[in-house]
Order: sequence, then structure tokens, then C-alpha cells
Amino acid sequence: MDEPVLLTGAGGHVGRTIYEGLKDEYDWRLMYHSQPAEEPDVPYFTGEVQDMDDVSPAMEGVNAVIHLAGDPRREAPWHSVLTNNIDGTHTVYEAAVEHDVEKVVYASSNHAVGAFETDERTPEMYRADDSFRLDGTELPRPGNKYGISKAAGEIIGRYYHDEYDISVCNIRIGNLNEDHPPIDYERGQAMWLSTADCAHIHDCALKADYDYEIVYGISDNDRKYYSLERAKDVLNYKPRDNSAEWDGAEKIV
Amino acid sequence: MDEPVLLTGAGGHVGRTIYEGLKDEYDWRLMYHSQPAEEPDVPYFTGEVQDMDDVSPAMEGVNAVIHLAGDPRREAPWHSVLTNNIDGTHTVYEAAVEHDVEKVVYASSNHAVGAFETDERTPEMYRADDSFRLDGTELPRPGNKYGISKAAGEIIGRYYHDEYDISVCNIRIGNLNEDHPPIDYERGQAMWLSTADCAHIHDCALKADYDYEIVYGISDNDRKYYSLERAKDVLNYKPRDNSAEWDGAEKIV
Repeated sequence: MDEPVLLTGAGGHVGRTIYEGLKDEYDWRLMYHSQPAEEPDVPYFTGEVQDMDDVSPAMEGVNAVIHLAGDPRREAPWHSVLTNNIDGTHTVYEAAVEHDVEKVVYASSNHAVGAFETDERTPEMYRADDSFRLDGTELPRPGNKYGISKAAGEIIGRYYHDEYDISVCNIRIGNLNEDHPPIDYERGQAMWLSTADCAHIHDCALKADYDYEIVYGISDNDRKYYSLERAKDVLNYKPRDNSAEWDGAEKIV
Repeated sequence: MDEPVLLTGAGGHVGRTIYEGLKDEYDWRLMYHSQPAEEPDVPYFTGEVQDMDDVSPAMEGVNAVIHLAGDPRREAPWHSVLTNNIDGTHTVYEAAVEHDVEKVVYASSNHAVGAFETDERTPEMYRADDSFRLDGTELPRPGNKYGISKAAGEIIGRYYHDEYDISVCNIRIGNLNEDHPPIDYERGQAMWLSTADCAHIHDCALKADYDYEIVYGISDNDRKYYSLERAKDVLNYKPRDNSAEWDGAEKIV
């Protein structure tokens, strides 16, 4: 692709994974919350994601945005997610309108639907023989205030899609927490998104054509309670990893 | 009912309609944004709905809340709805948890789903022979930033229901804008909620048993694109009015 792609939240775990995996694929612009320890090789910006004066210059000439910036803590307090995540996402979309950005890929989260994991359903729903699936058409059930903010961000994107015709893909990201699936942790194995699949699904979301989508971002784990059908059908997502192919930290298949 | 009910946004149009209609039915506590011109006959409070110090005293001893307070303007700017509506709704739920409130009836809005009214569907969807219906299971499509804030409020309520077992009913209120249906305005006739039905549906929501609900609040208009099935089934809502029974400002049936 010729036109620049902006990655917000470039300093976070997901951001670094995407940039490392797709460094040579796009003409990147990176946005950090604060000055990165290591200077990146591409144009970068620092600032508050809820501040238009900080976001707008980063969006100049950009064709697509991967918006990850925000408070990533699962137990982040309300006022932090209200400001950084909800207000921040609004600012990113406002800047996208200002700069005629065509596409926004938004990092939503498994926490937007975390309260589906009820006492009645767990731990069975984390097992390979369980058929419970979320597919992105269900109404959100946030498990914490971070999850509220992520679900609100999906709704903000819906408005900007309907009103300004921006293509929006919300990826409800699972757990990108290890180079291998979590050990002895059923939920974590169901939620695992490998490093390679994380970069790949964001690559797919940048390349595919769509209007407004909500997809789940996990590897093709035998254990899962998220449907990958929509990501496969619309984004052409072809996950290569599966937590069942690992025994502890060793790949066995 | 013996235990007090708090009505926030008591000074607004919907608030006054509910209080007038149900004055003798409940032991009311009223919350206003600013001092009301006429002193109410019941305990009342004034303050900012996003400020816990203002909301918490109003919630003391209360069993149920009808939460209407917020910026009601359809074209309200983002920072007003972020503060008054989104943060305000969070504060109301936090205070509800603090005071062991059992039930919250939340004034959502037709604007949470306003973008379903596409150029392709209108004006046909406003007509009695059109079968398009929303029933509350669809993902929101806000038509403006006010609508974003209302949809976000529904999600906040979902969290507080799941986490604290508060019964939550979100009423997507249509248009309570006249003593009679709007004249020569198809959308308005489809969206009409009469004064009597407005008080009645909130009475139903205070009396019924439910976990978490999203219902539509309009009269039983021949013209409609909201299903009333859920309100009828779960709340026992029995609307008595229908915009088709009016010719201009005259009731003809």
C-alpha cells in the first residue's frame, strides 16, 4: 500500500506486535503516549489521544488508522477509561473525518463481552467440546469498566461509519500475553491470540473491504467460545496458530 | 409501593410527565439540575448528575430510580453528552450500588438507533403498511452524539446488572413532544409517545420483574418501526394511544 497508515498506541504490547509483524508492509506513522525509549525508523508522534491538537497532526495524509491507544488495564478506573478510551476514541474518529481517512481498525476487547462468562457457563465454555459461541451480533456484556469503554468505542465507530462512511472494523482482541499459550489456564488457552495471528488479523483488516464489522481476534484454538467465521469470511483471516498444538511452552504439533 | 423512588431529570419534559402522571403512586424523591421554579411537594435535590456528592444524598433509602437526567438536546456537543450523559449515568449506577438500589429504569432514546432510518428505508418505514421493526436485540446505530451517549448508558447498565444484580430496564423513548401526535410529520407520528403512555410505561417498568431489558417506548401507533412486544410481554405495558386515531390536533376515534 502506498498511503500511510497510522498506528495509535504504538508503544503497547499489541502495537509493538503489529508494527514488528507488518513493518515492511505499510508506510507507517506511529503515535505514542510518551517518547519511546527507542527511536522508531518511521515518522512518529507523541501525545494524548483525547487531545485533538495531538492527534490531528498524526493523521495528516493518512489513509487508514489502527487505533489501539488508551488505558489498557483491565481494572482501570472509570475516569481513566472515560477520558483515554471513550473520549480518546471520539477524538481519533473526529480527526479521521477531518483528514478524510477511509478506514479505522479499532482495538476492541474480549472484556466488552466478558460478562458472558457466567458461573453457569464456566469453565465448560473454555473447553473444546463446548459449543457456546459469540459471533459479534450479540449485544455487549462488559466484564469491567475497561470493557464498558471498549463497547462504547464500537458504538462511536458505528456512528462515524453511518454518518461519514468510514469503513470500521472492531476487533475484539483475545489475550496476546505470551509467545506460547498460557499454561494450565483454560480461559487463557481459549482466548489466545498468537503474535503471528495478531499481526495477520490487523493486516487483513487493513486490506479487506467492508462497511462496519465486529470480529473476534483469537487464534484458531480448539478451545474457543468466539466464532471466527466473520473474520474469516469478511477479512480473509487465516489463523495459523492453535493453543491445542502446544504442551506448556513446547509446540507439539 | 412503600419504598421511595428517585426521579432524576425531574425538571425535564419526560420527568414532569412521569411525575404528574404517577404523583400519587409512589413515594417520590426528585432530583433537578437547578432549583425548580415551583417547589415540589416531595423531598427534592439539586445538583450535577455526574457528581457523586450531589447524587448520593438523593439516593439515600431509595429502592428504585428512574434516571432521566442528562443533556437532552439531539444536537448536544460531544463533551456535554460525555460528561452529563455518559459520566452522569455511571455516577447514578455507582450511587445505586452504594445505596443498595434494586432497580434502575433508564431513559434511553430513539436516537440510539436513529441511523437505522436510512435514505433507502425512509419514508416507507414510517408507514403503517411497512413491516420493518426494531425489537431491542439489534446492535445500536446512533444517529447523533446524544444517541451515542444513550447507547453507552445502556451498556453501563448492562455492566451494573451483571456485576451487582441491579434490575435494569432501558426504555428507548420515542417522541413526547405534543399533547397530540405531530401534524403532517410521518416520522413523528411513528415515534409518538402520548403523555398517558409515557407515565404508564414508566409505571410498568417500576412494577415489573426483570433482569436486564431494552424496550421501545412509543404509543401503539399504526405507524411504527419499533416492536412493542417486549414492553408488552415483560413490563405488561398496555398502551392506550395511537397516532392514527388523530386528525391533526383532533382525536377522531
